Amino acid sequence: MEQEKWQSELQQKWLLSGERMDELMHHGIKIIQSDEVFSFSMDAVLLSHFVRLPRGGKIIDLGTGNGVIPLLLSTRTSAQIEGVEIQERLASMATRSVQLNRLQEQITIHHMDMKEAPVRLGYGQYDVVTCNPPYMPVTQPELAHLNKREPVAIARHELLVTMEEVVRASSELLRYGGRVAYVYHASRLAELMYTMRTYRIEPKRLRTVHPRAHLEANMVLVEGVRNGRPELKVLPPLIVYADGEQYTKEIMEIYYGKDEDNTDPSRTTSSH
Amino acid sequence: MEQEKWQSELQQKWLLSGERMDELMHHGIKIIQSDEVFSFSMDAVLLSHFVRLPRGGKIIDLGTGNGVIPLLLSTRTSAQIEGVEIQERLASMATRSVQLNRLQEQITIHHMDMKEAPVRLGYGQYDVVTCNPPYMPVTQPELAHLNKREPVAIARHELLVTMEEVVRASSELLRYGGRVAYVYHASRLAELMYTMRTYRIEPKRLRTVHPRAHLEANMVLVEGVRNGRPELKVLPPLIVYADGEQYTKEIMEIYYGKDEDNTDPSRTTSSH
Repeated sequence: MEQEKWQSELQQKWLLSGERMDELMHHGIKIIQSDEVFSFSMDAVLLSHFVRLPRGGKIIDLGTGNGVIPLLLSTRTSAQIEGVEIQERLASMATRSVQLNRLQEQITIHHMDMKEAPVRLGYGQYDVVTCNPPYMPVTQPELAHLNKREPVAIARHELLVTMEEVVRASSELLRYGGRVAYVYHASRLAELMYTMRTYRIEPKRLRTVHPRAHLEANMVLVEGVRNGRPELKVLPPLIVYADGEQYTKEIMEIYYGKDEDNTDPSRTTSSH
Repeated sequence: MEQEKWQSELQQKWLLSGERMDELMHHGIKIIQSDEVFSFSMDAVLLSHFVRLPRGGKIIDLGTGNGVIPLLLSTRTSAQIEGVEIQERLASMATRSVQLNRLQEQITIHHMDMKEAPVRLGYGQYDVVTCNPPYMPVTQPELAHLNKREPVAIARHELLVTMEEVVRASSELLRYGGRVAYVYHASRLAELMYTMRTYRIEPKRLRTVHPRAHLEANMVLVEGVRNGRPELKVLPPLIVYADGEQYTKEIMEIYYGKDEDNTDPSRTTSSH
Protein backbone atom coordinates (compact mmCIF):
# COMPACT_ATOMS: atom_id res chain seq x y z
CA MET A 1 0.00 0.00 0.00
CA GLU A 2 2.78 2.41 0.93
CA GLN A 3 4.48 1.52 -2.32
CA GLU A 4 1.34 2.11 -4.37
CA LYS A 5 0.69 5.44 -2.70
CA TRP A 6 4.23 6.60 -3.43
CA GLN A 7 3.88 5.46 -7.04
CA SER A 8 0.67 7.34 -7.48
CA GLU A 9 2.03 10.49 -5.85
CA LEU A 10 5.14 10.21 -8.00
CA GLN A 11 3.06 9.99 -11.15
CA GLN A 12 1.00 13.02 -10.26
CA LYS A 13 3.74 15.18 -8.90
CA TRP A 14 6.82 14.39 -10.94
CA LEU A 15 6.23 12.32 -14.04
CA LEU A 16 4.73 13.14 -17.41
CA SER A 17 3.27 10.56 -19.77
CA GLY A 18 5.73 7.86 -20.83
CA GLU A 19 8.23 8.77 -18.09
CA ARG A 20 9.42 6.61 -15.25
CA MET A 21 11.76 7.05 -12.32
CA ASP A 22 14.93 4.98 -11.98
CA GLU A 23 17.58 4.76 -9.29
CA LEU A 24 21.13 5.72 -10.14
CA MET A 25 22.90 2.70 -8.78
CA HIS A 26 24.58 2.95 -5.39
CA HIS A 27 24.49 6.71 -5.30
CA GLY A 28 21.00 7.05 -3.84
CA ILE A 29 20.03 9.37 -6.70
CA LYS A 30 16.70 9.14 -8.51
CA ILE A 31 16.36 10.05 -12.18
CA ILE A 32 13.38 10.55 -14.46
CA GLN A 33 13.72 8.72 -17.74
CA SER A 34 11.67 7.83 -20.77
CA ASP A 35 12.34 5.28 -23.44
CA GLU A 36 10.52 7.44 -25.98
CA VAL A 37 12.50 10.56 -25.21
CA PHE A 38 15.76 9.89 -23.42
CA SER A 39 17.30 7.43 -21.05
CA PHE A 40 20.94 7.59 -20.14
CA SER A 41 23.59 5.20 -21.40
CA MET A 42 26.80 3.68 -20.08
CA ASP A 43 28.70 6.52 -21.79
CA ALA A 44 27.39 9.04 -19.27
CA VAL A 45 28.24 6.81 -16.32
CA LEU A 46 31.80 6.25 -17.55
CA LEU A 47 32.33 9.95 -18.25
CA SER A 48 31.03 10.92 -14.79
CA HIS A 49 33.50 8.51 -13.25
CA PHE A 50 36.43 9.44 -15.50
CA VAL A 51 36.53 13.23 -15.15
CA ARG A 52 38.72 14.66 -12.39
CA LEU A 53 36.75 17.12 -10.28
CA PRO A 54 37.69 20.01 -8.05
CA ARG A 55 36.04 20.13 -4.60
CA GLY A 56 34.46 23.47 -5.32
CA GLY A 57 34.20 25.90 -8.22
CA LYS A 58 31.94 25.71 -11.26
CA ILE A 59 31.14 22.78 -13.52
CA ILE A 60 28.99 22.78 -16.64
CA ASP A 61 27.60 19.81 -18.58
CA LEU A 62 26.76 20.52 -22.22
CA GLY A 63 23.85 18.65 -23.80
CA THR A 64 22.89 17.30 -20.42
CA GLY A 65 19.83 15.34 -21.60
CA ASN A 66 17.85 14.22 -18.56
CA GLY A 67 20.62 15.54 -16.31
CA VAL A 68 22.31 12.23 -15.57
CA ILE A 69 25.84 13.66 -15.57
CA PRO A 70 25.15 16.60 -13.18
CA LEU A 71 23.29 14.18 -10.88
CA LEU A 72 26.17 11.72 -10.82
CA LEU A 73 28.80 14.45 -10.44
CA SER A 74 26.93 15.86 -7.43
CA THR A 75 27.88 12.70 -5.52
CA ARG A 76 31.58 13.49 -6.04
CA THR A 77 31.95 17.23 -5.48
CA SER A 78 30.46 20.25 -3.75
CA ALA A 79 31.06 22.42 -6.81
CA GLN A 80 28.18 24.29 -8.41
CA ILE A 81 26.96 22.28 -11.39
CA GLU A 82 25.03 23.58 -14.38
CA GLY A 83 23.46 21.58 -17.18
CA VAL A 84 22.60 22.96 -20.60
CA GLU A 85 19.97 21.25 -22.76
CA ILE A 86 18.43 22.48 -25.99
CA GLN A 87 15.42 20.14 -25.92
CA GLU A 88 12.68 21.57 -23.72
CA ARG A 89 11.20 18.22 -22.75
CA LEU A 90 14.61 16.92 -21.65
CA ALA A 91 15.45 20.11 -19.78
CA SER A 92 12.13 19.69 -17.96
CA MET A 93 12.94 16.08 -17.03
CA ALA A 94 16.37 17.16 -15.78
CA THR A 95 14.90 20.03 -13.74
CA ARG A 96 12.35 17.74 -12.12
CA SER A 97 15.02 15.13 -11.30
CA VAL A 98 17.08 17.84 -9.62
CA GLN A 99 14.06 18.83 -7.52
CA LEU A 100 13.15 15.20 -6.75
CA ASN A 101 16.64 14.77 -5.27
CA ARG A 102 16.50 18.19 -3.52
CA LEU A 103 19.66 19.26 -5.33
CA GLN A 104 18.40 22.68 -6.45
CA GLU A 105 21.09 24.38 -4.37
CA GLN A 106 23.86 22.58 -6.26
CA ILE A 107 22.48 21.93 -9.76
CA THR A 108 20.90 24.38 -12.19
CA ILE A 109 19.47 23.26 -15.54
CA HIS A 110 19.33 25.76 -18.41
CA HIS A 111 17.02 25.23 -21.36
CA MET A 112 19.48 26.66 -23.84
CA ASP A 113 21.48 25.97 -27.01
CA MET A 114 25.03 25.13 -25.89
CA LYS A 115 26.37 27.31 -28.69
CA GLU A 116 24.90 30.29 -26.82
CA ALA A 117 26.16 29.18 -23.43
CA PRO A 118 29.38 31.26 -23.44
CA VAL A 119 27.62 34.52 -24.31
CA ARG A 120 24.71 33.86 -21.94
CA LEU A 121 26.52 32.27 -19.01
CA GLY A 122 29.95 33.86 -19.26
CA TYR A 123 33.30 33.33 -21.00
CA GLY A 124 36.17 31.69 -19.12
CA GLN A 125 34.13 31.14 -15.95
CA TYR A 126 34.13 27.35 -15.60
CA ASP A 127 36.62 25.01 -13.95
CA VAL A 128 35.28 21.89 -15.66
CA VAL A 129 33.19 21.25 -18.78
CA THR A 130 31.75 17.80 -19.47
CA CYS A 131 29.98 16.61 -22.59
CA ASN A 132 28.66 13.40 -24.12
CA PRO A 133 28.16 14.85 -27.61
CA PRO A 134 26.25 13.44 -30.56
CA TYR A 135 28.61 10.93 -32.20
CA MET A 136 27.42 10.64 -35.73
CA PRO A 137 28.16 13.08 -38.51
CA VAL A 138 25.16 13.70 -40.73
CA THR A 139 25.58 12.82 -44.37
CA GLN A 140 23.28 14.05 -47.12
CA PRO A 141 21.47 10.73 -47.75
CA GLU A 142 20.82 10.35 -44.03
CA LEU A 143 19.33 13.82 -43.71
CA ALA A 144 16.28 12.72 -45.65
CA HIS A 145 15.60 9.93 -43.16
CA LEU A 146 16.38 11.63 -39.88
CA ASN A 147 13.62 13.45 -38.11
CA LYS A 148 15.26 16.67 -37.00
CA ARG A 149 12.81 17.01 -34.12
CA GLU A 150 13.20 13.46 -32.87
CA PRO A 151 14.96 13.54 -29.47
CA VAL A 152 17.02 10.38 -29.97
CA ALA A 153 18.19 11.57 -33.41
CA ILE A 154 19.24 14.90 -31.88
CA ALA A 155 21.19 13.18 -29.12
CA ARG A 156 23.01 10.84 -31.53
CA HIS A 157 23.51 12.83 -34.71
CA GLU A 158 25.18 16.15 -35.35
CA LEU A 159 21.85 17.73 -36.25
CA LEU A 160 21.81 20.68 -33.88
CA VAL A 161 25.48 20.83 -32.92
CA THR A 162 28.69 19.53 -34.49
CA MET A 163 31.71 18.23 -32.63
CA GLU A 164 33.62 21.37 -33.57
CA GLU A 165 30.86 23.55 -32.08
CA VAL A 166 30.95 21.47 -28.88
CA VAL A 167 34.70 21.97 -28.58
CA ARG A 168 34.50 25.67 -29.37
CA ALA A 169 31.79 26.23 -26.74
CA SER A 170 33.84 24.21 -24.21
CA SER A 171 36.94 26.25 -24.89
CA GLU A 172 35.07 29.54 -24.53
CA LEU A 173 33.46 28.47 -21.23
CA LEU A 174 36.68 27.19 -19.62
CA ARG A 175 38.95 29.33 -17.51
CA TYR A 176 42.68 29.24 -18.28
CA GLY A 177 43.87 25.86 -16.99
CA GLY A 178 40.30 24.52 -16.73
CA ARG A 179 39.49 20.94 -17.73
CA VAL A 180 37.14 19.41 -20.24
CA ALA A 181 36.11 15.75 -20.43
CA TYR A 182 34.34 14.06 -23.31
CA VAL A 183 33.09 10.58 -24.02
CA TYR A 184 33.09 9.99 -27.76
CA HIS A 185 33.00 7.38 -30.44
CA ALA A 186 36.44 5.79 -30.86
CA SER A 187 36.36 6.13 -34.64
CA ARG A 188 36.46 9.93 -34.29
CA LEU A 189 39.28 10.18 -31.74
CA ALA A 190 41.77 11.72 -34.19
CA GLU A 191 39.28 14.40 -35.26
CA LEU A 192 38.38 15.12 -31.65
CA MET A 193 41.98 15.55 -30.50
CA TYR A 194 42.76 17.67 -33.54
CA THR A 195 39.78 19.93 -32.87
CA MET A 196 40.62 20.20 -29.16
CA ARG A 197 44.15 21.36 -29.98
CA THR A 198 42.77 23.77 -32.59
CA TYR A 199 40.75 25.42 -29.80
CA ARG A 200 43.70 25.43 -27.37
CA ILE A 201 42.56 22.48 -25.32
CA GLU A 202 45.48 20.09 -24.88
CA PRO A 203 44.50 16.40 -24.53
CA LYS A 204 45.99 15.21 -21.22
CA ARG A 205 44.30 11.89 -20.42
CA LEU A 206 42.92 9.24 -22.76
CA ARG A 207 41.16 6.03 -21.91
CA THR A 208 40.00 3.66 -24.62
CA VAL A 209 36.89 1.58 -23.82
CA HIS A 210 36.75 -1.91 -25.32
CA PRO A 211 33.69 -4.22 -25.14
CA ARG A 212 36.16 -7.06 -24.57
CA ALA A 213 39.94 -7.17 -24.12
CA HIS A 214 40.55 -8.59 -27.60
CA LEU A 215 38.16 -6.24 -29.44
CA GLU A 216 38.54 -2.76 -30.89
CA ALA A 217 37.52 0.18 -28.73
CA ASN A 218 34.04 1.53 -29.39
CA MET A 219 34.33 4.53 -27.06
CA VAL A 220 37.04 6.84 -25.81
CA LEU A 221 37.22 9.05 -22.74
CA VAL A 222 39.34 12.15 -23.27
CA GLU A 223 40.26 14.87 -20.81
CA GLY A 224 41.92 18.09 -21.91
CA VAL A 225 43.27 21.22 -20.25
CA ARG A 226 42.72 24.74 -21.61
CA ASN A 227 46.17 26.09 -22.52
CA GLY A 228 47.80 22.92 -21.16
CA ARG A 229 51.31 21.81 -21.99
CA PRO A 230 51.47 18.86 -24.44
CA GLU A 231 51.77 15.58 -22.55
CA LEU A 232 49.17 12.84 -22.81
CA LYS A 233 48.62 10.00 -20.37
CA VAL A 234 47.24 6.95 -22.15
CA LEU A 235 45.54 5.14 -19.29
CA PRO A 236 45.08 1.37 -19.07
CA PRO A 237 42.27 0.22 -21.37
CA LEU A 238 38.81 -0.04 -19.82
CA ILE A 239 37.25 -3.41 -20.62
CA VAL A 240 33.47 -3.71 -20.30
CA TYR A 241 32.74 -7.44 -20.41
CA ALA A 242 34.77 -10.25 -18.92
CA ASP A 243 33.46 -13.70 -19.85
CA GLY A 244 30.09 -14.05 -21.51
CA GLU A 245 27.70 -11.28 -20.47
CA GLN A 246 29.43 -10.63 -17.15
CA TYR A 247 30.70 -7.12 -16.55
CA THR A 248 34.33 -6.77 -15.50
CA LYS A 249 35.14 -5.99 -11.89
CA GLU A 250 36.08 -2.43 -12.83
CA ILE A 251 32.74 -1.74 -14.55
CA MET A 252 30.90 -3.17 -11.55
CA GLU A 253 32.87 -0.86 -9.29
CA ILE A 254 32.11 2.15 -11.47
CA TYR A 255 28.39 1.36 -11.29
CA TYR A 256 28.15 0.24 -7.69
CA GLY A 257 31.26 1.33 -5.85
CA LYS A 258 33.97 -0.90 -4.51
CA ASP A 259 32.12 -2.65 -1.71
CA GLU A 260 28.94 -3.80 -3.39
CA ASP A 261 28.24 -7.31 -4.54
CA ASN A 262 28.34 -8.16 -8.21
CA THR A 263 24.70 -7.99 -9.19
CA ASP A 264 23.89 -7.18 -12.75
CA PRO A 265 23.58 -3.41 -13.26
CA SER A 266 21.06 -3.94 -16.03
CA ARG A 267 18.55 -5.03 -13.37
CA THR A 268 18.63 -1.79 -11.40
CA THR A 269 19.28 0.76 -14.11
CA SER A 270 16.95 0.82 -17.02
CA SER A 271 19.33 1.23 -19.87
CA HIS A 272 22.97 1.71 -20.73
CA MET B 1 86.54 -25.09 -35.75
CA GLU B 2 83.89 -24.35 -38.41
CA GLN B 3 82.31 -21.92 -35.97
CA GLU B 4 85.62 -20.18 -35.27
CA LYS B 5 86.46 -19.87 -38.94
CA TRP B 6 83.06 -18.32 -39.65
CA GLN B 7 83.51 -15.92 -36.74
CA SER B 8 86.90 -14.84 -37.97
CA GLU B 9 85.72 -14.42 -41.56
CA LEU B 10 82.71 -12.46 -40.30
CA GLN B 11 84.97 -10.13 -38.34
CA GLN B 12 87.24 -9.45 -41.28
CA LYS B 13 84.61 -9.21 -43.97
CA TRP B 14 81.59 -7.60 -42.35
CA LEU B 15 82.17 -6.13 -38.93
CA LEU B 16 83.90 -2.99 -37.73
CA SER B 17 85.26 -2.52 -34.24
CA GLY B 18 82.60 -2.81 -31.52
CA GLU B 19 80.08 -4.41 -33.85
CA ARG B 20 78.54 -7.84 -33.61
CA MET B 21 76.10 -9.87 -35.65
CA ASP B 22 72.74 -10.95 -34.25
CA GLU B 23 69.96 -13.09 -35.63
CA LEU B 24 66.54 -11.50 -36.16
CA MET B 25 64.44 -14.10 -34.42
CA HIS B 26 62.61 -16.66 -36.52
CA HIS B 27 63.05 -14.76 -39.74
CA GLY B 28 66.48 -16.15 -40.63
CA ILE B 29 67.78 -12.60 -41.02
CA LYS B 30 71.17 -11.50 -39.69
CA ILE B 31 71.78 -7.96 -38.48
CA ILE B 32 74.91 -6.03 -37.55
CA GLN B 33 74.58 -4.21 -34.24
CA SER B 34 76.71 -2.31 -31.80
CA ASP B 35 75.93 -1.34 -28.25
CA GLU B 36 78.09 1.76 -28.61
CA VAL B 37 76.37 2.94 -31.77
CA PHE B 38 72.98 1.39 -32.33
CA SER B 39 71.07 -1.76 -31.60
CA PHE B 40 67.42 -2.10 -32.40
CA SER B 41 64.64 -2.03 -29.85
CA MET B 42 61.23 -3.63 -29.41
CA ASP B 43 59.69 -0.52 -31.00
CA ALA B 44 61.11 -1.43 -34.40
CA VAL B 45 59.89 -5.02 -34.13
CA LEU B 46 56.37 -3.93 -33.18
CA LEU B 47 56.23 -1.36 -35.97
CA SER B 48 57.43 -3.87 -38.56
CA HIS B 49 54.67 -6.23 -37.47
CA PHE B 50 51.95 -3.55 -37.21
CA VAL B 51 52.18 -1.85 -40.59
CA ARG B 52 50.00 -3.22 -43.38
CA LEU B 53 52.08 -3.89 -46.48
CA PRO B 54 51.31 -4.16 -50.19
CA ARG B 55 52.76 -7.17 -52.02
CA GLY B 56 54.68 -4.95 -54.37
CA GLY B 57 55.33 -1.26 -54.87
CA LYS B 58 57.71 1.01 -52.98
CA ILE B 59 58.36 1.30 -49.26
CA ILE B 60 60.65 3.74 -47.49
CA ASP B 61 61.85 3.67 -43.87
CA LEU B 62 62.95 7.05 -42.50
CA GLY B 63 65.76 7.12 -39.93
CA THR B 64 66.41 3.45 -40.54
CA GLY B 65 69.34 3.14 -38.10
CA ASN B 66 71.01 -0.22 -38.67
CA GLY B 67 68.27 -1.18 -41.13
CA VAL B 68 66.25 -3.37 -38.81
CA ILE B 69 62.86 -2.28 -40.19
CA PRO B 70 63.71 -2.82 -43.91
CA LEU B 71 65.22 -6.21 -43.01
CA LEU B 72 62.10 -7.28 -41.09
CA LEU B 73 59.73 -5.92 -43.75
CA SER B 74 61.58 -7.90 -46.45
CA THR B 75 60.23 -11.09 -44.84
CA ARG B 76 56.65 -9.89 -45.41
CA THR B 77 56.59 -8.36 -48.90
CA SER B 78 58.27 -8.38 -52.30
CA ALA B 79 58.04 -4.58 -52.52
CA GLN B 80 61.17 -2.51 -53.12
CA ILE B 81 62.35 -1.16 -49.76
CA GLU B 82 64.55 1.86 -49.17
CA GLY B 83 66.06 3.03 -45.91
CA VAL B 84 67.24 6.56 -45.20
CA GLU B 85 69.80 7.24 -42.48
CA ILE B 86 71.62 10.48 -41.72
CA GLN B 87 74.41 8.90 -39.62
CA GLU B 88 77.13 7.52 -41.87
CA ARG B 89 78.25 4.79 -39.49
CA LEU B 90 74.68 3.48 -39.15
CA ALA B 91 74.04 3.68 -42.89
CA SER B 92 77.19 1.61 -43.32
CA MET B 93 76.01 -1.00 -40.83
CA ALA B 94 72.63 -1.15 -42.56
CA THR B 95 74.23 -1.52 -46.00
CA ARG B 96 76.50 -4.34 -44.81
CA SER B 97 73.55 -6.15 -43.18
CA VAL B 98 71.65 -5.96 -46.46
CA GLN B 99 74.65 -7.49 -48.27
CA LEU B 100 75.16 -10.13 -45.57
CA ASN B 101 71.57 -11.27 -46.17
CA ARG B 102 71.94 -10.98 -49.98
CA LEU B 103 68.99 -8.58 -50.08
CA GLN B 104 70.63 -5.96 -52.32
CA GLU B 105 68.00 -6.56 -54.99
CA GLN B 106 65.19 -5.64 -52.61
CA ILE B 107 66.68 -3.17 -50.12
CA THR B 108 68.61 0.04 -50.80
CA ILE B 109 70.11 2.14 -48.00
CA HIS B 110 70.63 5.86 -48.58
CA HIS B 111 73.03 7.88 -46.44
CA MET B 112 70.84 10.96 -46.43
CA ASP B 113 68.98 13.45 -44.27
CA MET B 114 65.33 12.39 -44.35
CA LYS B 115 64.33 16.04 -44.76
CA GLU B 116 65.98 15.89 -48.19
CA ALA B 117 64.44 12.57 -49.14
CA PRO B 118 61.43 13.97 -51.06
CA VAL B 119 63.53 16.27 -53.26
CA ARG B 120 66.25 13.65 -53.80
CA LEU B 121 64.12 10.49 -54.12
CA GLY B 122 60.87 11.88 -55.50
CA TYR B 123 57.59 13.38 -54.30
CA GLY B 124 54.48 11.21 -54.08
CA GLN B 125 56.29 8.04 -55.18
CA TYR B 126 55.92 5.75 -52.18
CA ASP B 127 53.14 3.36 -51.20
CA VAL B 128 54.27 3.04 -47.60
CA VAL B 129 56.45 5.13 -45.28
CA THR B 130 57.60 3.77 -41.92
CA CYS B 131 59.42 5.60 -39.17
CA ASN B 132 60.50 5.08 -35.58
CA PRO B 133 61.32 8.74 -34.91
CA PRO B 134 63.25 10.30 -32.05
CA TYR B 135 60.76 10.58 -29.17
CA MET B 136 62.11 13.30 -26.99
CA PRO B 137 61.75 17.01 -27.59
CA VAL B 138 64.93 18.91 -26.80
CA THR B 139 64.63 21.56 -24.11
CA GLN B 140 67.18 24.29 -23.59
CA PRO B 141 68.68 22.89 -20.34
CA GLU B 142 69.10 19.48 -21.99
CA LEU B 143 70.88 20.89 -25.00
CA ALA B 144 73.92 21.66 -22.88
CA HIS B 145 74.21 18.03 -21.81
CA LEU B 146 73.41 16.25 -25.06
CA ASN B 147 76.23 15.43 -27.40
CA LYS B 148 74.84 16.35 -30.78
CA ARG B 149 77.13 13.86 -32.49
CA GLU B 150 76.36 11.00 -30.18
CA PRO B 151 74.42 8.35 -32.16
CA VAL B 152 72.11 7.31 -29.31
CA ALA B 153 71.25 10.94 -28.55
CA ILE B 154 70.43 11.51 -32.22
CA ALA B 155 68.19 8.44 -32.34
CA ARG B 156 66.30 9.42 -29.18
CA HIS B 157 66.16 13.21 -29.19
CA GLU B 158 64.84 15.67 -31.73
CA LEU B 159 68.35 16.95 -32.42
CA LEU B 160 68.53 16.50 -36.18
CA VAL B 161 64.86 16.13 -36.99
CA THR B 162 61.61 17.07 -35.22
CA MET B 163 58.37 15.11 -35.27
CA GLU B 164 56.82 17.72 -37.52
CA GLU B 165 59.69 17.36 -40.00
CA VAL B 166 59.24 13.56 -39.97
CA VAL B 167 55.54 13.93 -40.74
CA ARG B 168 56.14 16.54 -43.44
CA ALA B 169 58.74 14.35 -45.17
CA SER B 170 56.38 11.34 -44.92
CA SER B 171 53.52 13.29 -46.44
CA GLU B 172 55.68 14.53 -49.30
CA LEU B 173 56.99 11.04 -50.07
CA LEU B 174 53.60 9.30 -50.05
CA ARG B 175 51.43 8.87 -53.09
CA TYR B 176 47.75 9.83 -52.79
CA GLY B 177 46.18 7.05 -50.68
CA GLY B 178 49.59 5.79 -49.50
CA ARG B 179 50.11 4.68 -45.91
CA VAL B 180 52.44 5.77 -43.14
CA ALA B 181 53.12 3.91 -39.90
CA TYR B 182 54.87 5.28 -36.85
CA VAL B 183 55.83 3.95 -33.46
CA TYR B 184 55.97 6.79 -30.99
CA HIS B 185 55.96 7.68 -27.33
CA ALA B 186 52.40 7.52 -25.94
CA SER B 187 52.72 10.89 -24.23
CA ARG B 188 52.95 12.60 -27.62
CA LEU B 189 50.04 10.85 -29.34
CA ALA B 190 47.85 13.96 -29.46
CA GLU B 191 50.64 16.03 -31.04
CA LEU B 192 51.41 13.27 -33.52
CA MET B 193 47.80 12.86 -34.67
CA TYR B 194 47.39 16.63 -34.88
CA THR B 195 50.51 16.96 -37.00
CA MET B 196 49.52 14.05 -39.25
CA ARG B 197 46.18 15.71 -39.97
CA THR B 198 47.90 19.04 -40.55
CA TYR B 199 49.92 17.36 -43.32
CA ARG B 200 46.85 15.60 -44.78
CA ILE B 201 47.60 12.20 -43.33
CA GLU B 202 44.45 10.85 -41.68
CA PRO B 203 45.07 8.51 -38.71
CA LYS B 204 43.29 5.24 -39.54
CA ARG B 205 44.63 2.65 -37.06
CA LEU B 206 45.86 3.11 -33.50
CA ARG B 207 47.27 0.52 -31.15
CA THR B 208 48.34 1.46 -27.65
CA VAL B 209 51.19 -0.59 -26.17
CA HIS B 210 51.08 -1.18 -22.41
CA PRO B 211 53.90 -2.84 -20.39
CA ARG B 212 51.15 -4.58 -18.41
CA ALA B 213 47.35 -4.67 -18.76
CA HIS B 214 46.80 -2.41 -15.74
CA LEU B 215 49.49 0.15 -16.63
CA GLU B 216 49.52 3.25 -18.80
CA ALA B 217 50.69 2.88 -22.39
CA ASN B 218 54.31 3.82 -23.01
CA MET B 219 54.19 3.45 -26.79
CA VAL B 220 51.65 3.86 -29.55
CA LEU B 221 51.52 2.45 -33.06
CA VAL B 222 49.72 4.72 -35.52
CA GLU B 223 48.93 4.15 -39.18
CA GLY B 224 47.64 6.93 -41.39
CA VAL B 225 46.52 7.32 -44.99
CA ARG B 226 47.46 10.25 -47.21
CA ASN B 227 44.21 12.08 -48.04
CA GLY B 228 42.23 9.40 -46.18
CA ARG B 229 38.67 9.87 -44.98
CA PRO B 230 38.38 10.39 -41.19
CA GLU B 231 37.65 7.09 -39.45
CA LEU B 232 40.00 5.63 -36.86
CA LYS B 233 40.15 2.02 -35.73
CA VAL B 234 41.32 1.79 -32.13
CA LEU B 235 42.69 -1.73 -32.04
CA PRO B 236 42.78 -3.96 -28.93
CA PRO B 237 45.58 -2.87 -26.59
CA LEU B 238 48.93 -4.65 -27.02
CA ILE B 239 50.19 -5.90 -23.67
CA VAL B 240 53.92 -6.69 -23.39
CA TYR B 241 54.31 -8.63 -20.16
CA ALA B 242 51.95 -11.17 -18.66
CA ASP B 243 52.99 -12.31 -15.19
CA GLY B 244 56.40 -11.40 -13.84
CA GLU B 245 58.97 -11.07 -16.62
CA GLN B 246 57.12 -13.36 -19.01
CA TYR B 247 56.15 -11.89 -22.37
CA THR B 248 52.51 -12.27 -23.41
CA LYS B 249 51.60 -14.83 -26.02
CA GLU B 250 51.04 -12.09 -28.58
CA ILE B 251 54.51 -10.58 -28.07
CA MET B 252 56.06 -14.05 -28.38
CA GLU B 253 54.19 -14.55 -31.63
CA ILE B 254 55.35 -11.19 -32.97
CA TYR B 255 58.96 -12.13 -32.20
CA TYR B 256 58.91 -15.78 -33.16
CA GLY B 257 55.82 -16.44 -35.23
CA LYS B 258 52.85 -18.52 -34.23
CA ASP B 259 54.39 -21.98 -34.25
CA GLU B 260 57.56 -21.50 -32.24
CA ASP B 261 58.04 -22.43 -28.64
CA ASN B 262 58.04 -19.78 -25.97
CA THR B 263 61.73 -19.20 -25.39
CA ASP B 264 62.79 -15.85 -24.06
CA PRO B 265 63.44 -13.41 -26.93
CA SER B 266 66.09 -11.63 -24.89
CA ARG B 267 68.31 -14.67 -25.34
CA THR B 268 68.41 -14.57 -29.11
CA THR B 269 68.15 -10.86 -29.78
CA SER B 270 70.64 -8.66 -28.13
CA SER B 271 68.49 -5.77 -27.03
CA HIS B 272 65.02 -4.35 -27.13
